[in-house]
Amino acid sequence: MPLNIVESTHKKAKPESEQIPFGRTFTDHMFVMDYEADKGWHEPRIVPYEPLTLDPASMIFHYGQTVFEGLKAYRADDGRVLLFRPEKNFERLNLSSDRLSIPPIDEQEVMGYLEELVRLEKDWVPAFEGTSLYIRPFIIGTEPSLAVAPSKSYKFMIILSPVGPYFSGGIKPVTINVEDQFTRAVKGGTGMAKTAGNYSSGYQAQAKAAQEGNADVLWLDGVEKRYIEEVGSMNIFFKIDGEVVTPALSGSILKGITRTSILELLKKWEVPVTERRISIAELYEAYEEGKVEEAFGTGTAAVISPVGELNWLGNKMVINDHEIGELSQKLYDTITGIQRGRKEDIHDWTVEI
Amino acid sequence: MPLNIVESTHKKAKPESEQIPFGRTFTDHMFVMDYEADKGWHEPRIVPYEPLTLDPASMIFHYGQTVFEGLKAYRADDGRVLLFRPEKNFERLNLSSDRLSIPPIDEQEVMGYLEELVRLEKDWVPAFEGTSLYIRPFIIGTEPSLAVAPSKSYKFMIILSPVGPYFSGGIKPVTINVEDQFTRAVKGGTGMAKTAGNYSSGYQAQAKAAQEGNADVLWLDGVEKRYIEEVGSMNIFFKIDGEVVTPALSGSILKGITRTSILELLKKWEVPVTERRISIAELYEAYEEGKVEEAFGTGTAAVISPVGELNWLGNKMVINDHEIGELSQKLYDTITGIQRGRKEDIHDWTVEI
Repeated sequence: MPLNIVESTHKKAKPESEQIPFGRTFTDHMFVMDYEADKGWHEPRIVPYEPLTLDPASMIFHYGQTVFEGLKAYRADDGRVLLFRPEKNFERLNLSSDRLSIPPIDEQEVMGYLEELVRLEKDWVPAFEGTSLYIRPFIIGTEPSLAVAPSKSYKFMIILSPVGPYFSGGIKPVTINVEDQFTRAVKGGTGMAKTAGNYSSGYQAQAKAAQEGNADVLWLDGVEKRYIEEVGSMNIFFKIDGEVVTPALSGSILKGITRTSILELLKKWEVPVTERRISIAELYEAYEEGKVEEAFGTGTAAVISPVGELNWLGNKMVINDHEIGELSQKLYDTITGIQRGRKEDIHDWTVEI
Repeated sequence: MPLNIVESTHKKAKPESEQIPFGRTFTDHMFVMDYEADKGWHEPRIVPYEPLTLDPASMIFHYGQTVFEGLKAYRADDGRVLLFRPEKNFERLNLSSDRLSIPPIDEQEVMGYLEELVRLEKDWVPAFEGTSLYIRPFIIGTEPSLAVAPSKSYKFMIILSPVGPYFSGGIKPVTINVEDQFTRAVKGGTGMAKTAGNYSSGYQAQAKAAQEGNADVLWLDGVEKRYIEEVGSMNIFFKIDGEVVTPALSGSILKGITRTSILELLKKWEVPVTERRISIAELYEAYEEGKVEEAFGTGTAAVISPVGELNWLGNKMVINDHEIGELSQKLYDTITGIQRGRKEDIHDWTVEI
C-alpha cells in the first residue's frame, strides 16, 4: 500500500547527553495504520507525533485487546543506523495478535513502513555510548462497543523514543525475589503473547519485591509454583556446572529475541546449552553443591542483566560473588558489538536503514 | 469535592423501542475525574459525552493498567429509577484497583457523583420490558511513559448506555462448551479483579466454542483443568439433588454481585446452598445418576442465564430438557422484580435516584 507522509513542522529538541529517561521522550513522527472489517489494514501513514482521539467506549479501555513489540535502532560507530532482527518482532507480533483475536499484519509491508519511519527520524538515533532509539509498535482495538467480543476496528501504531543506557555506570548484577504467591501466567493463558495485561498484573509482585530490597521478580510457573519461567519482563539463563540452562518455552513464557540469539550464539560457540524445565529447588540444590556459576536475564532493554542474588522463601543465593560472569560478559559484548557495528555480523542479524 | 457540571447543548435521540443493541448507544453526558500523584483524585465533573484525547504513549495502551465495573439503572413500573446494590460495585472496583496497583477511590463520594449523573440522564433510562441503562465506571492509567511501572496519573470515568433485554423473546437456556485448553485465570493472577486483560484473553475460547455450536465457555481452573470456575463472564450455579452448589471464591473467580444476592436469597428461602470446589467430573457423575436438576450463569447483564446443555470432551449433558428450571425462574423473577420495583425490596438492595 502507498505510504502517505505528513512532515511535522515543529521539530522538537533532541537529547544532548546519554542521560535520557526511558520511554518519556518521543520523536517528531509516528506511523499509523487502521483496520476495518470490510477494508482490512489500510491508510498507512507517517504523521506528526500527536495525541490519539478515541471514544471512551473504545474496546481498548474495557477488554484489553492489544498487543505490542519492543525493538531498537542503534547508531554504529561509523554513523550507520542498524536494527537488530526486526523481522522477528513482527513475526512475534502476529503470534501475539493471533492469541488476542487481532487480525494479522503483513510483516514485510510493515517492515518497509518501519524502515521509512526510522529513515525519517534518523537524527533521533542517539550516538552516546549505550543509547539507542527504542521502537514501540502496538495494536489497539478501537471499536466503540461494550460487547465482550473482538473489536471490528483496530489501530496499528509505531512510536519512537530515544533511550539512555540500561545500566548507568556499567553493568551491575541485581538482586531478585523469587515470587511465591503472585502468578504471571499459566498454560492456556496469554503468557506467550506480548499483551498489555501481562505487564500490569506484575506490579504488585514488583512492589513487594522492592519493599524487601529486590530489583525485580523471578516468576515461577502458575500451576505448581515450582518451575522457573521468567525474570521481570526478561527471559532467564543459568550456567550450572559448565552447562547453560534456560526454561523451555512452556506456553506461558515469552519467546524473547535476545533469548533466541543467545541460544544460537552458544550453539555456535559449542557451549553446552539446554532448554528444559528447571525447578527452583533444583537450582538451590545445585547452588548448595557450588555449581551455580552465572545467572542472567535477557531482553531488548538490557541485552544481558546479570543476577547477583536470589531470595526464595528466606533463602539467599549469591551468584558469582555479585560479579558479572565471564560468559555473561562475552554474550553482552558480542550482541551489543553486532548491534553497534563493532563486530562482524556473521549471522546477518542487522538491517541497515 | 464539588462536582462541576457542563451540560450538553446537543441532545441525542433516545431509543424508541426495546430493540437496543448492547453497549453501542451512549447518553449525552459522562462523569470524569483525574488522579495525579501529588493531588490525589481531583476535578470531578460531568461533561458532554465526548472523545478522549490521550498521548499514544499513555500506559493504558501498553501495560493494561485498568479496572472497570458494570451495573444498571432500572425503570420501575411507577416511573422511579432504581440502582441495584451499587455500593457493592464501588467496593469491588477498589478491590480490583488494589490488585492492579491503582489508587483507590472514595466509594461514598463516587456514589454521590454517580447519582448526580444518573439523575441528569434520567430520561435515558428506558421503560420497555427488559431494558435498562447500563452503567460503566472504569479507570485507566494515563501517564505517557513506556516504563513498566504503575502509572502516576489516572482517569476515572462513568459512561452510560441504554440496553435492550438480554434475552429477546423470553429466556432461552444456552449450550456451553467446557473449555479444556485455554485458561481464563489462575490463583495469584488477576481472575478476581475486573480488569480488561481477563476479557480479551477469552476470545479464542469463545470463537472455538461458537464454531462447535456453543453460545459460551465454561472455564475450569488453570492448575488442574478440573474444577469449575465461571461461565463466560458470569458466575455459575448448579442444582444437584436438591442442593444448590456454586464454586467457592478461589482467588481466580470474580465475586459477582448477582452471585452474592442469590446466595443471600437461597439462605433466606432455606434452600440448601454450598460454596465449594466442584469438579467437572463430579458434575458428570451426578448427571449420570440423574441428579443434575438445574444449571445457570449469573451476572448483571442476564441476571440468570440458564444452561441447557454442556459439552465436555465430547460428552454432552442435557440439563432439565433445555428448559428453564423452577428455581432459576424464581430467582430471576425475584431479582428482576426487586430491580423493577415490582416486588418489595425487603433486603434494602435498591437505591432510588
